[in-house]
Amino acid sequence: MVTIGRRRWAIAEGYLPPGGEDDSYELRSHEAACILNAGDVDARVEITLFFTDREPVGPYVVVVPARRTLHLRFNELREPEPVPVNTPYSSVFESDEPVVVQHTRLDSRQAALALLTTIAYGDD
Amino acid sequence: MVTIGRRRWAIAEGYLPPGGEDDSYELRSHEAACILNAGDVDARVEITLFFTDREPVGPYVVVVPARRTLHLRFNELREPEPVPVNTPYSSVFESDEPVVVQHTRLDSRQAALALLTTIAYGDD
Amino acid sequence: MVTIGRRRWAIAEGYLPPGGEDDSYELRSHEAACILNAGDVDARVEITLFFTDREPVGPYVVVVPARRTLHLRFNELREPEPVPVNTPYSSVFESDEPVVVQHTRLDSRQAALALLTTIAYGDD
Amino acid sequence: MVTIGRRRWAIAEGYLPPGGEDDSYELRSHEAACILNAGDVDARVEITLFFTDREPVGPYVVVVPARRTLHLRFNELREPEPVPVNTPYSSVFESDEPVVVQHTRLDSRQAALALLTTIAYGDD
Repeated sequence: MVTIGRRRWAIAEGYLPPGGEDDSYELRSHEAACILNAGDVDARVEITLFFTDREPVGPYVVVVPARRTLHLRFNELREPEPVPVNTPYSSVFESDEPVVVQHTRLDSRQAALALLTTIAYGDD
Repeated sequence: MVTIGRRRWAIAEGYLPPGGEDDSYELRSHEAACILNAGDVDARVEITLFFTDREPVGPYVVVVPARRTLHLRFNELREPEPVPVNTPYSSVFESDEPVVVQHTRLDSRQAALALLTTIAYGDD
Repeated sequence: MVTIGRRRWAIAEGYLPPGGEDDSYELRSHEAACILNAGDVDARVEITLFFTDREPVGPYVVVVPARRTLHLRFNELREPEPVPVNTPYSSVFESDEPVVVQHTRLDSRQAALALLTTIAYGDD
Repeated sequence: MVTIGRRRWAIAEGYLPPGGEDDSYELRSHEAACILNAGDVDARVEITLFFTDREPVGPYVVVVPARRTLHLRFNELREPEPVPVNTPYSSVFESDEPVVVQHTRLDSRQAALALLTTIAYGDD
């Protein structure tokens, strides 16, 4: 199987729009980090969140199994604490195996949805 | 002619919105991988899809001729099986020649279309 | 002054939506390559366009003066020939000085505009 | 704490849509550079803006404290001068510590908002 990716990634932009619980799961506003583990070993990923005016929070720990992808919605993170809405943040991912991280947001605060995406910044 | 690109690429984010067959071909919801082969030799590209809860599917094989670009819509892939709609996935591209891969989605589930794009993650 | 960037860039995705001449210049559908030359020497940039089913077209030649940025709209290219609408293409940029290239599209085919952007793929 | 990022970044695309002061702060049109400093030392970042037809303006100086993120809106920059609206520009960031820079725009000129983002071009 393929080995592709890096062990450290950062997404400088982060923002959970408030509300939107009325929509279906797919069309509800959300911000996601898509994490691909194309290799043959499970990846343990530690996520740390950075804020404007307080100390970082984390690590949030997720496991991406071998040969699987995880489309992680930030608003579903629970431990050590939920991600606050309507608050700018950044995220750093540290994995023990090479992974690829991509940032996506769907914003349905208004009638027409808006989308954004970018491959995260990968470092070694 | 120019040689530019890499041989291995990954798109961590993937999602085919359901429906939308009523729209014109250009405005119908779709997700695409644009593959540029600027070199003088045809490129054979093997695509593998990764999912959340089952083994990868592939390879899907496409050829991008020398000095050509291919705007590949994922929902047109047929062999070894169609890409499921409304299901998160990731994709890895392995080419025998240097190519450049860019990810684009047009979402017309609602009245106003939404667009996203990013250069994929390139590796060696 | 700063020297930042690379001499070779590629944008795999390219597409000029048809029509839209009724809108103002700023809100009219367009696809742009933003080229930053932060250095102290004028940059001569040769652009080649790649298509699905015919030979590449180019070079289109633009000069980005020292310490200037050029927001180039593809639909304003004229020599050697205009860029066809409603046709997928890719573009390669070869500059004699380091520059930074970013791809942007504004799509106003429908009432609500859509935007996309990505830093292009830079190579050496 | 983590050290991740680079010291020099460029965003080739820049544009402040006019108007929009009627909306709430979150939904008002804006263009932002999100700057993450994941390290243990405050980062001093000098920003220079480049235009189409005049000399660069800057440096704008911002400090991103250790372990903090700054979601900087370009239209809030004041010294040495405000960023003009409806005018294409590019930006270069020079930091004395490693940071990660991501570009985002929210455009609410029309009823439906549009979003774009990309990790900036990082150099050393």
